[in-house]
Amino acid sequence: MTTQAFDFTPLLAPNPPAPAERYAGFPKYNFVGGHNDPEHLPLDELIAAATAVLKREGRTLATYGLNSGPLGYRPLRAFLTQKLQGHAGITCSPDEILLTSGSLQGLDLVNALLLSRGDTVLVERDNYGGTLSRLARLGVNAIGIPLDEGGMRMDALAAALDDCKRRGVRPKYIYTIPTVQNPTGTILDEARRAELLKLSHAHGVPIFEDECYSDLIWDGRRPPALYAMANGQGVIHIGSFSKSVAPALRVGYVVAPWNVLARILALKTDAGSGALEQMLLAEYCTAHFAAHVPKLNRGLRAKLETLMEALAEHFGTAAEFTDPPGGIFLWVKLPDQVDTQKLAQVALAEGVAINPGPEWSLDKERGKRRLRLCFANPTKEEIRQGVAALAHICHREFGVPARIANVARQA
Amino acid sequence: MTTQAFDFTPLLAPNPPAPAERYAGFPKYNFVGGHNDPEHLPLDELIAAATAVLKREGRTLATYGLNSGPLGYRPLRAFLTQKLQGHAGITCSPDEILLTSGSLQGLDLVNALLLSRGDTVLVERDNYGGTLSRLARLGVNAIGIPLDEGGMRMDALAAALDDCKRRGVRPKYIYTIPTVQNPTGTILDEARRAELLKLSHAHGVPIFEDECYSDLIWDGRRPPALYAMANGQGVIHIGSFSKSVAPALRVGYVVAPWNVLARILALKTDAGSGALEQMLLAEYCTAHFAAHVPKLNRGLRAKLETLMEALAEHFGTAAEFTDPPGGIFLWVKLPDQVDTQKLAQVALAEGVAINPGPEWSLDKERGKRRLRLCFANPTKEEIRQGVAALAHICHREFGVPARIANVARQA
Repeated sequence: MTTQAFDFTPLLAPNPPAPAERYAGFPKYNFVGGHNDPEHLPLDELIAAATAVLKREGRTLATYGLNSGPLGYRPLRAFLTQKLQGHAGITCSPDEILLTSGSLQGLDLVNALLLSRGDTVLVERDNYGGTLSRLARLGVNAIGIPLDEGGMRMDALAAALDDCKRRGVRPKYIYTIPTVQNPTGTILDEARRAELLKLSHAHGVPIFEDECYSDLIWDGRRPPALYAMANGQGVIHIGSFSKSVAPALRVGYVVAPWNVLARILALKTDAGSGALEQMLLAEYCTAHFAAHVPKLNRGLRAKLETLMEALAEHFGTAAEFTDPPGGIFLWVKLPDQVDTQKLAQVALAEGVAINPGPEWSLDKERGKRRLRLCFANPTKEEIRQGVAALAHICHREFGVPARIANVARQA
Repeated sequence: MTTQAFDFTPLLAPNPPAPAERYAGFPKYNFVGGHNDPEHLPLDELIAAATAVLKREGRTLATYGLNSGPLGYRPLRAFLTQKLQGHAGITCSPDEILLTSGSLQGLDLVNALLLSRGDTVLVERDNYGGTLSRLARLGVNAIGIPLDEGGMRMDALAAALDDCKRRGVRPKYIYTIPTVQNPTGTILDEARRAELLKLSHAHGVPIFEDECYSDLIWDGRRPPALYAMANGQGVIHIGSFSKSVAPALRVGYVVAPWNVLARILALKTDAGSGALEQMLLAEYCTAHFAAHVPKLNRGLRAKLETLMEALAEHFGTAAEFTDPPGGIFLWVKLPDQVDTQKLAQVALAEGVAINPGPEWSLDKERGKRRLRLCFANPTKEEIRQGVAALAHICHREFGVPARIANVARQA
């Protein structure tokens, strides 16, 4: 048969993304991605849970949807109703929860439900890169709302909504990560949440609440979810087990009243998300989740402290940041002469991976001097060495930080 | 806060599908869906595999993509290179395999790579319902190519390609399930495969080869994959572990040369498919897959025989079908007065689930008298009882079958 090369290029759908690069392995100092701390992965309990649930119900894996139907494994949805009640104040039934392949599938489903090319949405100006890139791919106009140390600024949101109204535009949603915002780490307090709901209601613009980091709070204290405060009306809520148990398991969820969830479920045409991972999580979480999360958080807090100390040591006052109340990342501002997009490229070639601010903000100019450092996966020693290496590269490329531990740097 | 009901209707993206129905539980006699035989699920080996792989590598679950990067768990890709070589004659490297959340994600990714509204594709006329509904949702013009007992008819394909050429249309792909076609169960022989590749080449139209059923062949004999015969040029190949091990695990794969796979991977923005299920399958399959599949096939063949006997007994000559060489479904033709869409509705209300032909064929008129019966999941006793119940309902609604075991039916 023919072995002549076939060129797919003329057949591609319009505006294809750039082809993926070949995987080059894990960077030596990895400060990107939502990876978690392997030491705090509860491996023995997960093995015991897998064995127990497979012995008891393993044969149901022969059935799409197990015995639970397309919303996903019912015992995990039952666990979630309790967790969401206790943790976020959300009252919902298992039939108002859809289990998804990570919260990213939830993001895609909600976008598929509501968005089409040319639509407008309101989002926090500094934001999760995956949300921003999705909106760009969909051809949606994302208006960035600035944040301060209390999260999304309500005066700015009100002004943006008024402006949309003047222009006759009804935004499709207000997307927010209110509880440990990505990348700023802020938590929106209850008063601002109430104000946000009032604005949402007044303008008829629903809220898309992404809580994938909300388990990771040092003191465990948080305001009720927007979904809870609105009694589930006009809010779609998503969450994940990626950050609290294990990212590679890819189990997330969408919470919405049934009439909305039924429309989302109709768009989920994947014959169900991975069932074993749902079974494993239900078995594990029912027994251990409540005890696991504080332990994980203590470990994360300790790594954050290592990171902040290393930044103080190697960058001095050149690195500005706020000590976040939780999460797995730090949003760092460097001096004006730094271009973090360029820094990220150079650093990656030398084994240090960072998220450059322009990929994590709608304000590219502002993002240029900012970067996101994820601290859950590297060891404390890797954090120290990685920050030292980054400071060295940054000084070489941009002249800052000028000093290290009170000693002037040599280029 | 407000608890006023929020109406999402005016905000929905255009042409939303109908909302999902609430899950009503598993039907008593379930002849639909790709469910498998719970008795042939290799549970003990799966438990052992899960335990072994978690003990050895479980901590890597703290990392998106494990240590393997975005193509998926490398040992499973390594297993697949061997399986695909031995089984389908495909020579490929692990870096030409992308692990997906079921082969359905593969279907979606290839569609995202190539299709946009108004495009034309060529597909087997009787076809997997999920493929037909996807193409309809995408606004793609699917031209159905008739099949005979040898699979897709090459004279009809040649005519359709010529017709497209005359109209100045370059179809985006020829989609085929060549090895145990869904729903007809046919296997395209090697001569037709060669002809298909010749036509594909002559018209510059690539082939999209879906092999999700190709492990389920009673005598294990099959022609090489189209991908193999074309040396991977102009063919994208997808497959699955759903039919051979367990559907609820949701692990499938795409095989393509790297320059094509890199474009597909760029569209896979889900932070990886479920890793534990990939780890489990790699561990299990490397040791047991080759021995497992023939056992599974013997069990499926026995159920098919029960189904064919029950049809002969309860429908007599009213049910026409060809004894398929493999698979988990039978494509059955009933007399002209039957409307299987209506039959499916009435039967479902009485606990018998079947796939009506119009959902499984582009030719709705032809489909009206046909139905698909999946036989892997029900027990033999359920198959017998379910077919008896279906015959009873069909007789009541449409007057056929008129007789049962030589006795005239009472309405």
